[in-house]
Formats: sequence, structure tokens, C-alpha cells
Amino acid sequence: MIVVLTGGTGGAKLIEGLSHVIDAAQLTVVCNTADDFILHGLNISPDLDTIMYTLAGMSDPAKGWGIQDDTFTVLTQLERLGGETWFKLGDRDIATHITRTRLLGAGVKLSDVTDKLRNSLGIRTRILPMSDETIATRVETREGEISFQEYFVKQGWQAEVKNVFYAGVEKSHPAPGVLEAIDAAAGIIICPSNPVTSIGPILAVPGIRDALKRVSVSIVGVSPMIGESAISGPAHKLMAAQGIESSALGAAKGYADFVDQFVIDNEDEPLTKKLETLGIGVVKTSIRMKTLADKQALARQVLALVDK
Amino acid sequence: MIVVLTGGTGGAKLIEGLSHVIDAAQLTVVCNTADDFILHGLNISPDLDTIMYTLAGMSDPAKGWGIQDDTFTVLTQLERLGGETWFKLGDRDIATHITRTRLLGAGVKLSDVTDKLRNSLGIRTRILPMSDETIATRVETREGEISFQEYFVKQGWQAEVKNVFYAGVEKSHPAPGVLEAIDAAAGIIICPSNPVTSIGPILAVPGIRDALKRVSVSIVGVSPMIGESAISGPAHKLMAAQGIESSALGAAKGYADFVDQFVIDNEDEPLTKKLETLGIGVVKTSIRMKTLADKQALARQVLALVDK
Repeated sequence: MIVVLTGGTGGAKLIEGLSHVIDAAQLTVVCNTADDFILHGLNISPDLDTIMYTLAGMSDPAKGWGIQDDTFTVLTQLERLGGETWFKLGDRDIATHITRTRLLGAGVKLSDVTDKLRNSLGIRTRILPMSDETIATRVETREGEISFQEYFVKQGWQAEVKNVFYAGVEKSHPAPGVLEAIDAAAGIIICPSNPVTSIGPILAVPGIRDALKRVSVSIVGVSPMIGESAISGPAHKLMAAQGIESSALGAAKGYADFVDQFVIDNEDEPLTKKLETLGIGVVKTSIRMKTLADKQALARQVLALVDK
Repeated sequence: MIVVLTGGTGGAKLIEGLSHVIDAAQLTVVCNTADDFILHGLNISPDLDTIMYTLAGMSDPAKGWGIQDDTFTVLTQLERLGGETWFKLGDRDIATHITRTRLLGAGVKLSDVTDKLRNSLGIRTRILPMSDETIATRVETREGEISFQEYFVKQGWQAEVKNVFYAGVEKSHPAPGVLEAIDAAAGIIICPSNPVTSIGPILAVPGIRDALKRVSVSIVGVSPMIGESAISGPAHKLMAAQGIESSALGAAKGYADFVDQFVIDNEDEPLTKKLETLGIGVVKTSIRMKTLADKQALARQVLALVDK
């Protein structure tokens, strides 16, 4: 079993590649939930949903979120009834949130809800939320503290960020199966996801980083950065706000205590020596994943590294 | 101000007619909420919604429920995720339930939720739930006790009914504005709705029947029955189960302590004398409302009686 730690967009691309290269049932995904939020009274888990839709073959590759060819009838009517529309919820997507909200309201744990949903969609890959408890990435801006989705989607990540923290993480616990999956893994992959708001929260759940440090199998990280910018999204801005160098080197430093090898883009070749001083192996390749072929190619390379 | 007591389908037809015949702002609707239920975790108020959609010009006249030309994308996906589909929730209809559920969850009272919804839809008629408290029509069948929607929609009103009762009604209170509207009314209309499960629950809310008995203005009831059957729905079956004669006479008996005049169909002319012995005036006309013209014609006749 290969265990994959991921957020949404970037990680989903590699996971899509992996699911085409090895048996999807041989993957276990541990997914960030610190972006989860409530809108229209519905429990929305953006990263879990992106991974789930990707593995179900339902995702919209052009948008990077939501369900392909989804309609927006409910959202249009919600707007007429005074609801907020900055988060684009499609009709079929809303069915996910209605189901999740109903089950959570009935006392079912998020990990069980997620398992039920992925089974309903015929997904053979196990998808584990990092925790069943509420953990919320909070973004401190000059104008005040906001949720990650408000920063990312509502404000289009334009606000100047002073600090990022994960509310509730100190007292949280890994969801059932997370530590067990890491302990039993044949190899572990850290996806090219935002180090601050996707992988960061997972590592901050007490017990997960220690488990990663403890395992003897190979752990391979993939850089979410090329040059000084994230391949997509605001990772570089959030890294800078946290005093982290916004580059593959900055990302690698956060994982150096448990990662064996780190995959960077060919363009970042000049960082090789500095990365090696962290005591980790450095692998250069093309890490942009625009086509399914790109995703499969990178997935094959990462799997080969894990197998070594 | 004309005050109208109603359930869903049958009452909605007369209310549609009324709204075309007098200024819609001169109507106040007091609506049954004992059919309300929760499905998919959403608070659904079928009668409030039918009246609201009717007054907004959104209703589906062919179906008698829901929104015209609504789509069912969410419901189809909910089914895939293991949800129940016996209650046909359209996409735009679901936006209503999501909004209501969110507001109720935030502590907003049903009467305020309803007012917000009808204002959002541009409805000038005030729509009042009979109560802000939870009252549930329960149907006792041979197979056990079920909700009204389970009896009516899920089982297609085929179960043999032993008894009907309104759980929670004894300790309930009229919603804000209900008694005030009755007291200040220039006339009151009892719609051709199910006497057991639509008008019955309204009259059972402590204070409402007394208010109707107290007023000096004219109260006009319209029969929901022609011959021994309801014009639509299971009223005759439920009346029989409650030991009420399933006819216009049976319906009138339940209102005789406050109704001044009762409108029956021409076909029920033979009941005239028995009805008159109840001490109420009897008016014969055609009470089937198939077209908008039918609805307007009956509305005009009822308004003329109220004005007398």
C-alpha cells in the first residue's frame, strides 16, 4: 500500500496519475481538512471533494475544482433567496454536501462519511481525512482574521497575509486509520500541495509527523514550487508570510526531518546543492502536470523512487 | 385584509384565484405546517412552499407541487450517494429548503424565515405558518405510526388508517401575527383543504379556533369534498378513519362552530337541508378549479360572500 498525503488541486493531479499507473486499491490518501468550512449551512470539504471527484473520474480538469459539466441551478436560486455565491457550488456537488451534512448531523464521523461517499461513487482508493475533528486554517490579514476559503476564493488571495495558523489542531487526533496506514505503508508520497495550508495542517495533527519520522520505508516529496512561485495557488505568498523561503528549498526544509527524496523541477537545478545539505536525495524532472500523460509520467517516476 | 386558512394543493388553487381578483397585499395566509418534515437533513415545509410558489407564479399547475420546469440534478446525485428519492425535490426547490434549514439552524423562527423567503420571491401576500413550533401530523396504520409525508407521498395513501393525531399541538402557540390577523380581518376564508391534515392542525393550535369563534366578520368555508371523495388527495379516507362522514357535510360539521357560510358543489345539492341544520348558510356553485378562470370565478364568489 502506498500512502499519499495531499491537499486539493496540485495533489489531485499526481493522485490522478498514480491511480492510472498502479491499482487504485493499492493507494491510501490522507487528505487535508483544514480548508473545510460551512456555507449555506452545508459542511463543505474542498480537498476531500477534489480528491474524491478526481478518483471517481468526475472532476473538472479545466477548473481544478468541482464536477465536470455540473449545473448551477441551486446556487442561482440560493442567490435569489439571499445566499452567498462566491463559492461556486454545482448541483451535483451540493448533493455531496447535503449528504455529508446530514450524516455528520446524525453523529457519523467524517472518516466514515468520507468512506461512505467514496464507496457510493465506486472509488477503490481509501480516502482518509487527516482528522475527524474540526481544524480550521485561519489567515490573519491587515483587515482581520479570515478563513482559508475567504482568503483563497472570496478574496482571490490578494490580501496581505501576516500569519497563518491551524485553529484546533493542538488538541486534534489523526482520523482512525491514518497512523495505521503510515505505519503499514510500502512507501509514502508527499504531494505537490501547498506546504502551508495543505500539507502543513496534516503534519500539525499530533502524531502524524512522528509517524512519518518513524517509518523505515521510503518517503518521497514532490515540490509544489517552480522558481519562486507555486505551480498554482498562493503557496509562495503564504510561505513568505510564515518566514519560509518561497521555493522548492523552502518547501523541502519543512519536510527534511522525514523525507528521503525530494522531486524538483529541472528549472530548479541550481537549488540541488542546498537541498542536498538538508540530507535528502534530490531528483530533477519536469513536475508540471498539464496532461494526463504528464500526470502518469510523474507518478511513474515518483513510484520508482518510492520502490528504491 | 382577508385572512385565509389553508393547506397545500386545494387551498393553493383558491389562493391563486384570490391573488388575481384582489390586491395580493390584501391577503394574509395562515398555513398548515403539520406536514413539515426533515429529509436529507433539510427542513421541508410542503404547504408553505406550495403556497409560496403559487403566489410567486412559480408553481407547477400540472403536478400541484414543486416549481414549474424545475430540474432534478441534486436528487439524482443524492440517490447515487444513498439518499431517499420518494419525495421529489427539484433543484430550485432544494434552494428553498437549504435556506430554510440554514436560517432555522441559526435560531431564526419559522415565521421570520417564511417572511424572508416570500419577500425574496417578491410575494406581496403575507404568509404565516400556523405556529413556529414543531407540530407533526402522525398517521397510525396497521403497520405502525408514520409521518404524513410517508403516508401521503411515500406510500401513496394506500395504507389503512386507524387514527391521525397532531404530535406537539397541545403545547404549541400560534405564530406571531396569526391571532392578530384573525382579529383584524375584514373576512376569513377556510380553503378547500384536507379537513383532517390541513385545516385540522391549524384549528388545533390552542387559541386559533377560539379566535375564529370570537370574530364578528364573515367566515366562509369552501368544501374540499364532492360526493364522498376529496377533489384531490386522501381527505375522505382520513375523515373516515377519524369517524367523520366523508362528505361536504362531514367537513362542515368540523367548522360549524365558527363558519357563517359553507360553499359546496352543485352536485351536493341534496346535502343542503342537513347543512342548514348546522346553523350555517349554504351556497352551491361549481367548486372544481381546473383552470385559472375556474379559480378566479370561485374566488370572486367567495369574496362576495365574505363581503356580505
